Amino acid sequence: MGKVEKRLSELGIELAPPKQPVANYLGCKRSGELLYVAARVSTQRGEVGTDLDRDAAKHAARETIILLLSIIRAEIGNLDLVESVERMQGFVRSAPTFTEQPYVIDGASELLIEVFGESGRHARTATGAAQLPSGAAVQIDMTLRLNAGA
Amino acid sequence: MGKVEKRLSELGIELAPPKQPVANYLGCKRSGELLYVAARVSTQRGEVGTDLDRDAAKHAARETIILLLSIIRAEIGNLDLVESVERMQGFVRSAPTFTEQPYVIDGASELLIEVFGESGRHARTATGAAQLPSGAAVQIDMTLRLNAGA
Amino acid sequence: MGKVEKRLSELGIELAPPKQPVANYLGCKRSGELLYVAARVSTQRGEVGTDLDRDAAKHAARETIILLLSIIRAEIGNLDLVESVERMQGFVRSAPTFTEQPYVIDGASELLIEVFGESGRHARTATGAAQLPSGAAVQIDMTLRLNAGA
Repeated sequence: MGKVEKRLSELGIELAPPKQPVANYLGCKRSGELLYVAARVSTQRGEVGTDLDRDAAKHAARETIILLLSIIRAEIGNLDLVESVERMQGFVRSAPTFTEQPYVIDGASELLIEVFGESGRHARTATGAAQLPSGAAVQIDMTLRLNAGA
Repeated sequence: MGKVEKRLSELGIELAPPKQPVANYLGCKRSGELLYVAARVSTQRGEVGTDLDRDAAKHAARETIILLLSIIRAEIGNLDLVESVERMQGFVRSAPTFTEQPYVIDGASELLIEVFGESGRHARTATGAAQLPSGAAVQIDMTLRLNAGA
Repeated sequence: MGKVEKRLSELGIELAPPKQPVANYLGCKRSGELLYVAARVSTQRGEVGTDLDRDAAKHAARETIILLLSIIRAEIGNLDLVESVERMQGFVRSAPTFTEQPYVIDGASELLIEVFGESGRHARTATGAAQLPSGAAVQIDMTLRLNAGA
């Protein structure tokens, strides 16, 4: 078991084998040392600020990162090959008056830092959307850098 | 005529010379071996789920890729220089209850795979927007990788 | 004083030391020769098309770039190390009928060209959002390329 999976295990997180995308895209695309990770939505549905509150949405963001990590592991075999998280983009399905998207997306950012340490810190965009695929509460995509030897 | 344009021709697609952006940005920006392709909107206007249905929107996504390909060709001269499609981002102008953004953006992804084959497969973000430039139904941007010698 | 800061000074722009992000992300993330700049919102709040008009929003976009430049300078020390602006993404908090997002985001693009000259020209995505963090009018992120020696 690699270092990152050991850390996940300490956090009580187990990665399930991911389902394939249902639409015509790749879960991840390798581009030199970059890995573009396609957006996935939270299993949690609903509009944040009406159907669920900011803490439930923050939890949904965390769960979405766990899904993305399972996809990345299936793609590259070993999460220790991740050198750093470069960029993350999070969309929050927001009620007209909900403006705490950064609070919600911190659920994703904080888990990446817990798992990868300082190299998990990243630039990001946390923004609002009126509607998301399947009516999900949160949608996240990322760009990672892999180790030179990966 | 290059391989990719021959393929487009087999698909009955002809690339028209693109109009220049009306605002202050570049249609494409070369960055090392990456080519960032600026977002363009579909000529099809309207809100998906009310003004047009998911299939009309999927067609609009396909048409938007044809526009982007004409812009890329004008920039790099020959579409055979495209090594692969790394990432695509598609915004669908969505009615409050419309949640099939991935179905719509498949219209774009499928054409890229038809044209470029396996290297046309990409990571992507298909998401909702309440409003888009010019009231368009779909807006798409991409990141491509060019051949090392391009 | 570097060339770029001299240019800013000629434009009457002074960069204040930036505040740290309040949420768990980095203002910038260096990735090889790329610099991913995290999204920041305008201090100007409100919905464009109702609370403020397109020109006030365009000004807000320009102000947001000044904020981003102050963050980038704090990160890399000297703005002369910026080789070019590769990509920019701008979200405009849009009233249901507001469709001039490109006009608004030109306020950001034009300043980048004034400051960096031709290498400030970039690919971009200017799109609508129903809601943004803190109820801001505009939100912008960027990807820059740094000089090879930076």
